Amino acid sequence: MKVSERVDALRQLMVQKGIDAYIVPTADYHQSEYVGEHFKARAFMTGFTGSAGTAVFTKNEAGMWTDGRYFIQAAQQMEETGVILRKMGEPGVPSIEEYLKTALQKGSVIGFDGRTVGVDEGQLYADIAAEKGGHVVYDCDLVSELWEERTPLSEKPAFMLDIKYAGETVASKLERVRSEMKKNETNIHIITSLDDTGWLLNVRGDDVDYFPLLLSYTIVKMDSVELFADERKFSDEIKAEFKKNKVSIHVYNDIYDVVKHLTKEDKVLIDPKRMNYALYMNIPDEVKTVKQENPTIIMKAVKNDVEVENIKKAHIKDGVAHTKFMYWLKTNIGKIEITELSASAKLEEFRGEQEHFLWPSFEPICAYKEHAAIVHYTSSPETNIELKSEGLYLSDTGGHYFEGSTDITRTIALGKISTLEKKHFTSVAISMLNLADVRFLYGCTGMNLDYVAREPFWRQNLNFNHGTGHGVGYLGNIHEPPTGFRWQFRPNEVRPFEANMIITDEPGIYIEGSHGIRTENELLVCKGEKNEYGQFMYFEPITFVPIDLDAIDPELMSEKEKMLLNNYHQKVYELISPFLTEVEQDWLKDYTKKV
Amino acid sequence: MKVSERVDALRQLMVQKGIDAYIVPTADYHQSEYVGEHFKARAFMTGFTGSAGTAVFTKNEAGMWTDGRYFIQAAQQMEETGVILRKMGEPGVPSIEEYLKTALQKGSVIGFDGRTVGVDEGQLYADIAAEKGGHVVYDCDLVSELWEERTPLSEKPAFMLDIKYAGETVASKLERVRSEMKKNETNIHIITSLDDTGWLLNVRGDDVDYFPLLLSYTIVKMDSVELFADERKFSDEIKAEFKKNKVSIHVYNDIYDVVKHLTKEDKVLIDPKRMNYALYMNIPDEVKTVKQENPTIIMKAVKNDVEVENIKKAHIKDGVAHTKFMYWLKTNIGKIEITELSASAKLEEFRGEQEHFLWPSFEPICAYKEHAAIVHYTSSPETNIELKSEGLYLSDTGGHYFEGSTDITRTIALGKISTLEKKHFTSVAISMLNLADVRFLYGCTGMNLDYVAREPFWRQNLNFNHGTGHGVGYLGNIHEPPTGFRWQFRPNEVRPFEANMIITDEPGIYIEGSHGIRTENELLVCKGEKNEYGQFMYFEPITFVPIDLDAIDPELMSEKEKMLLNNYHQKVYELISPFLTEVEQDWLKDYTKKV
Repeated sequence: MKVSERVDALRQLMVQKGIDAYIVPTADYHQSEYVGEHFKARAFMTGFTGSAGTAVFTKNEAGMWTDGRYFIQAAQQMEETGVILRKMGEPGVPSIEEYLKTALQKGSVIGFDGRTVGVDEGQLYADIAAEKGGHVVYDCDLVSELWEERTPLSEKPAFMLDIKYAGETVASKLERVRSEMKKNETNIHIITSLDDTGWLLNVRGDDVDYFPLLLSYTIVKMDSVELFADERKFSDEIKAEFKKNKVSIHVYNDIYDVVKHLTKEDKVLIDPKRMNYALYMNIPDEVKTVKQENPTIIMKAVKNDVEVENIKKAHIKDGVAHTKFMYWLKTNIGKIEITELSASAKLEEFRGEQEHFLWPSFEPICAYKEHAAIVHYTSSPETNIELKSEGLYLSDTGGHYFEGSTDITRTIALGKISTLEKKHFTSVAISMLNLADVRFLYGCTGMNLDYVAREPFWRQNLNFNHGTGHGVGYLGNIHEPPTGFRWQFRPNEVRPFEANMIITDEPGIYIEGSHGIRTENELLVCKGEKNEYGQFMYFEPITFVPIDLDAIDPELMSEKEKMLLNNYHQKVYELISPFLTEVEQDWLKDYTKKV
Repeated sequence: MKVSERVDALRQLMVQKGIDAYIVPTADYHQSEYVGEHFKARAFMTGFTGSAGTAVFTKNEAGMWTDGRYFIQAAQQMEETGVILRKMGEPGVPSIEEYLKTALQKGSVIGFDGRTVGVDEGQLYADIAAEKGGHVVYDCDLVSELWEERTPLSEKPAFMLDIKYAGETVASKLERVRSEMKKNETNIHIITSLDDTGWLLNVRGDDVDYFPLLLSYTIVKMDSVELFADERKFSDEIKAEFKKNKVSIHVYNDIYDVVKHLTKEDKVLIDPKRMNYALYMNIPDEVKTVKQENPTIIMKAVKNDVEVENIKKAHIKDGVAHTKFMYWLKTNIGKIEITELSASAKLEEFRGEQEHFLWPSFEPICAYKEHAAIVHYTSSPETNIELKSEGLYLSDTGGHYFEGSTDITRTIALGKISTLEKKHFTSVAISMLNLADVRFLYGCTGMNLDYVAREPFWRQNLNFNHGTGHGVGYLGNIHEPPTGFRWQFRPNEVRPFEANMIITDEPGIYIEGSHGIRTENELLVCKGEKNEYGQFMYFEPITFVPIDLDAIDPELMSEKEKMLLNNYHQKVYELISPFLTEVEQDWLKDYTKKV
C-alpha cells in the first residue's frame, strides 16, 4: 500500500468514527525522546522517517509539520504522497493549533490516540474542539487498524541492574518514594516515564531506540507495586527479584482499565508533565489527585556514590575509545576514504572494544564543515560527505556501559583551518573550561552560572542558540531533568545543583554555511567547604579526551585560561595513556602538552 | 507622660474598643522606606527611636520586635518602660505571628491602623484572628487619641520638577499610563506609592525623611486625575500646572471614603504590593479589580534621555564633592579630631557646595573599623567613635540634586591596614569592576549576572549577605524597583535590564569584629550591537570617585582587572580634576595612577 492509499484508508475510518481531523504524532505512550519501531505511525502514514514530525489528516488535506533540520529529507520522502510539508517556524506557515482553528468547521471532532499525546497537548486539542462546539475522541488508534504489517511491540528481554551498578536496592528506593507519597498525603503513585520505572525497579530493557528502557507503567502502592509490562520479557531470576519487593506483573496496556477503577478512597500522586492524555483522562474525577513532579526525578538525578564511581569508570573507557578515534582520524585523514558516517562507525567500533559497552547512548551527530553549523544535523546516507584533510569535524556521541552512560562532543581539525575557525574554537574551549571551574554557594541554579559560558561569546557579540548543558541519566535518558545550564528563566526549572548530579558543559558556535564547533565535557557536582556563609560547591570534570590543540590559539587565552587547559590535559594524559598503545601514547603526549 | 503611662492609656482605649491585641508598626500610609515625624507612633509608644520595629500590646504584655542592628539601642531606650525587647531572629524568640497565635484567647480581636499596614500583613493578622474565631479592627488609630503633642502631618511646600529635569510632560506620562489601563481593560487606577505619584505628576515634596516625596494618593481616571494631598502645599503655579492636566486636589485622607463609593461599573487597576490594608478593604467587593504592578514602576525605572543626561551631571558634582572629601580625610586624619559623625557631616558640607544640591538621599552610613562589619550600621551619638590614622573607614552616602539622586560607597584606608584587609579590599574592587564590565544579551536579569560579582569571594569561600545592587530613583526612592543584582530567585523579580535603567553595583565583605569593606558605583544600562543573535547590552559606570589605591594589592589582580581599574581611574581624573584645586588635582593624579 502506498502512502496515498494509506491516507485514503485512514479517511474511510475517520468517516466511520465521525472524526473530522486525525492527528498522528511521533511518540510512544511515555513521552520518550526516542521511540521503538512499533510507534513509528507518523512515518507509516506520511513516508517521512525523521525523528520529529506531526501529521494532521482532514477530509481534504494531509499535512506534516516538522522543523528546519528535516525540510529537505521530508520533501524528498513525501514527494508524490500528496502529504503537504508544513515547514515549522517559516513565515506564513500556520502552527498545528492555528491550522486546526482555521480548517475545522463548527461541531468538528478531533481524533487521536490519547496514549501518544501529553496531557497539555491533549488539553489543547480538546480546547480547540470545544471552541468549535465539538469534542475530541482520544481512545482510537486508527493507524493500527490499517497497518497490517505493523511491527509488534518490542519483545526484547529485560535485564536487572546489579546492585554493584545501581548502588541502591529496590527496597530502599521504594521506601524513599513511599515516604514522599506520605508527605503528600497520597497512597498511590502512578509512574509512566520509562526512566523513572527503570531507576525505581533497577530494571532495564531494549524497547526504544538508544535508551535501554523497558516499555512499562508502574503503580506504587504503600505495600505493593503493580508493573504493567510484557511478562515474557522477564527471566525467572527477575521475577524472583520482583517477588521480594512485592512487584506483580500485569498486561502492559491493562493500566488504562485499572485506573478507571480507582475510587474516592484513593489519593493519587501523578506528574501531568510525564503522563499521556488518555491515562490522565481515564482517572475518575472523584479520585483525589496530587499533581507534582515524580519524586523519582530528583532521586534519580542525584547519583549515589556507587553510581558516581561507576560513571567515572565509564568515562575512562569512553575517553580511551575517543582518544584512539582521534588518533586514528588525525593519522588517516587524506590517506584513506573517510566519510561522516564511516568516521562515526569507527568511533562506535572503538567503543565496542571496551568492556561492558552496550550500544550508543543517543543518535550520533557526525558533521563536517558547514554541516556542523546545523545544530541538530544528523548525517544520513543522503547527506553523508567525505572528510578531507582540512576544516573542522564535529562529533557528538556517547555510549551506554553497565557503568553508566556518556555524552561527549569534540571538534577536530582535519588539516588547515581558518584564523576565524581557530578563534572560535579557542572561545569554545575557554567557555567550557571556565564554566567547569566555577565555585558557588549551594542554592545556585544553571541560570546563575550560565553567564560564565556565554561570556566569551557575548563579548564578541556572538551567541549559541541552545542550552549550555543538561543532566545525564545512568542507563536512562541522555537528557535527564531537572537541572542544566540555561540563562533564560523557565518556571519549574529553577532547581539548585545538588552534590552527585551529573551535568554536561557544552558551549558551541555555529556559523551558517561555514563551520560549527562544540566541545562537551560532563561535570560532577561536588561539595566544597561549608562555613558560616553556607555550603560551597564546585564541579569536577569526568570526561577525559584531548581538546584539539591544532585548533587552539594560545594568544587568545589569559594566563588563567591556559592554566585550566593545561591542568585538564595533564589529567587526560594521566588517566587515558595507560590504556593506549605506545604510538598512541606518544601522540597523546603531544596533544596534551602545555600551551 | 512616660512610656509606661502611654501603654496604660492605650490599654484603656483597647478595653473601650474591645481590642485584645493592638499592633503599632513603623510605617506611614504608603509603605515608604523612611517616614515623617507624624508617623513615628511606634517610637512614641515604646521609646525606641530606631528605623525598624513593630510593637504589639496585649492586656498583660507590651513587646517590641526589632532586628540585630538595634538590639543595643532598643534595650537602652526601653529600659524601665516595661516594654519587652523581642530580638528577631534570635533562638527561642517567637515571630509576631507566632506570638499572636500563642498569646491570644478564643474570639480575640486584633486591632491596628489599617493605613499603616500592607495588604499581605493585614491579611495575615485577619487570618490569625479568624483562626481564633475573632476578627480584626483596622479602622482605628488609637495612638492618635492619646498622643496629644503628635507632630501634625508635614505641611512643607511641594515643588514641580521642571521639564528640563523631568524630561517628559505630565500629559505624556498620563497618556502612557492610560494606555496601560486600557490594555488591562480598566478605567480607574489607584496609586498609593509616593514615588509613583511624584514621577507621574512631576511633583515632589519634603514630607518623609530623606526622599523628596509628597504625602498623597492619586486616582487616575481616563479623562481626569484626583490627587489627595494637603492643598496648602501647592503654589498657584503648581495648581495652574495641575489644571492643564485636569488634576483636581482633594483632602489627603478623603480617599478612604471615595473608594467606598466605587461601583460595579468601575474597573480598577491596583497594585496590592503597594497599597495599605485599609484602602484595599474599603474597595467594595462588587468592584472589578485588576491586580498587578503599577505601570509607573517600569516607566519610572527606565529613565528618559533628559534624565540620563541630568543624572550624569549629578554624578560629576557628587564625584567632585566625594573626591574633595577623600582628599580632606586623607590629609587631615591624625592631625585634627575626626569622628564617624563629623566625617559624615564634612562630606555633606562638600556636597552642599555643589549647585542644586537639596539634601542627603538617604541616612548616611559612616562606619569605622569593626563598625563597618555591621552591614546596616548607622552611627549615632551613642556609638560614634573617633577615626585614627589606621584601618578602614566605610562611607555609604548620597545626595539629591535637581539633576538626580546619587548613591555611592567608598571604603578609605586611613593609614596602615592589614594584609588581609588589603586582600579583601582588592577582591571587592575586582568584584565591582568585573560586574560593571559584563556584556550580555537583552533578556538577562540580575540573577544571570550576579555571579560575576560573587566569583572573587566564592572562590575564597567568602560571601556577602546582601544584594549586589538595586535600581536608583530620580528624586524618588533610593531603592527603586523592579531590577537589581541578586543571585537568589525571587518571584516577581525576574525582570530583564532595559536600556536607561540605573543600577548600583555594590559588593562588599564584612568580617565581624574586624572590618567591613564596600565599594559602590552606579551603572547605566546601555544598548550595544544588535544582530542575528539579539540585542547586546552593557553597563556604563556613572560614578566617578577614586577607589583607594592605598588599599589595593595589584599582585592579586589579573592583567585584565588592572586594565579595568586603570581605565576607570583615568576617566575619574578626566571628569573630576577640572573642578578641583591644584593641590587636590595633584593628589587625584596620584590616586588615579596606573597600577
